[in-house]
Amino acid sequence: MFSGAQISLYPMTDDFVGVILKAITALDPYRPRFRIATDDVSTLLVGPPEELFPAMRDLFVSAAASGHHCVLSAAVSRGCPGEPDDPICTPINDSRHGEPLEARIAAARQAVARAGLVGHSVAAQFSLYPLGDGHHMDEIYGCIDFLKTSGVFEKSKNFCTKLRGDAGPVFATLSEAFLRFGAPEGHVALDLTVSANSPSKL
Amino acid sequence: MFSGAQISLYPMTDDFVGVILKAITALDPYRPRFRIATDDVSTLLVGPPEELFPAMRDLFVSAAASGHHCVLSAAVSRGCPGEPDDPICTPINDSRHGEPLEARIAAARQAVARAGLVGHSVAAQFSLYPLGDGHHMDEIYGCIDFLKTSGVFEKSKNFCTKLRGDAGPVFATLSEAFLRFGAPEGHVALDLTVSANSPSKL
Repeated sequence: MFSGAQISLYPMTDDFVGVILKAITALDPYRPRFRIATDDVSTLLVGPPEELFPAMRDLFVSAAASGHHCVLSAAVSRGCPGEPDDPICTPINDSRHGEPLEARIAAARQAVARAGLVGHSVAAQFSLYPLGDGHHMDEIYGCIDFLKTSGVFEKSKNFCTKLRGDAGPVFATLSEAFLRFGAPEGHVALDLTVSANSPSKL
Repeated sequence: MFSGAQISLYPMTDDFVGVILKAITALDPYRPRFRIATDDVSTLLVGPPEELFPAMRDLFVSAAASGHHCVLSAAVSRGCPGEPDDPICTPINDSRHGEPLEARIAAARQAVARAGLVGHSVAAQFSLYPLGDGHHMDEIYGCIDFLKTSGVFEKSKNFCTKLRGDAGPVFATLSEAFLRFGAPEGHVALDLTVSANSPSKL
C-alpha cells in the first residue's frame, strides 16, 4: 500500500532557512527506509505508514528546540488508488485492523499510553478523511471517541480536532488515528497542523 | 449547507505578528457575511462557499505584499454532516452542479479565464477529498482534467496537485475545484498550501 506525506516546516523567524536545515538532520535515521524529495513548497516522505509520524515528530521537535514559533503542516495519505504501489510502503502488518471500532479504540489508547515523553509541548489539530464507499462518518466518530480519551485531547473545532500535550503522546495519538481508523486497505488522508512556541495567549 | 475553513498564516520573519495583524485587515470587507474566530493555531471562517477563496486570496496577498516568505495553510470544508447547518452558509446557488463532468470542467475553465490579475505570483498545492459514497476518484480525475487546462497548472505531485501563477487565477482555480467537483450537496474537503516569496530555487 502506498503511504506517505507532503510535509512543510514553517519557523517564524528571519533565520527560517537555518532552522529548517538544522532540523532536517533529524530525518537522517529514517532515510534508509524512506524516499524523500523536496521542492519549494513541501517535502515528500514515502515509506512505512507506522514510521511517518515518528519521523515528523523528530523533525518537528528538532525545529521547536530552536525556541522560535514553528509550525509543521502535512498532508498524510495511505492507500490512494491513484498512486503507484511502492515496495517501500509495507502494508500495515497489524491484524487488529479487522476488529470492530470498540476494540480498535482500546488498542489505540493503549499504544498512546506506551508513548514516551520527549519534553516539548505542542498543539496539534487535524482532520481525518476516510475516502470511498463505506461508513466514513462512523469511522470519524469512532476516531473522535478515541481522541477524547487519549490524554491529549483539547477540544473539537469546526472541521478538525485539537490536541495539546507533550510531543510524544501527541504524535502517537495522530499515528493511531491515521493507522487504525478507515478501512485497513482503504484510502485514508489526514490533514495536520502542529504548532510550538506560539506567543498567542490561550 | 455548512461551509468554511480553518486557516493559518505563516510569515517567515521575526516580525510575524506584525505581518499577520496588518494582513487580517484585508478580511474586513468579508466580516459582515462571515463568522470569524481565532485561537493559537488557526482562524475559523464560516460563510458563503463562493466567498471563501476570495477572502483567503485577499488575506494572503496582503501578507505577501510584506515581501517576506509567507505561507497560507487551510482546511476547507463544505457539507460536513457533523456540522450544524448554519444560515450564514448559503447553498451553492448554481444549477450547473447537476451537470456531467465535461460541462463542469468547461464552466470551471471559463470562470478562471474571467479572473482578474492581482500582480502577485504564488505557488499553491492542494488535495481535494470528496467524502462519502460515490465515485470519489472519478470526481478527482475530472478535477485534475480541469486543473491541467486552467492556465496555472504546474505539476501533479504525490497526494496533491501544484499550481503556479498570479494569485487571481490561482485562487479562482482553487475555488472552482472546491465548488464544482464532488456532489453538490455532498461532503467535500480541500487541504490547501499557498506560498509566496520563497527563497528556494526551482
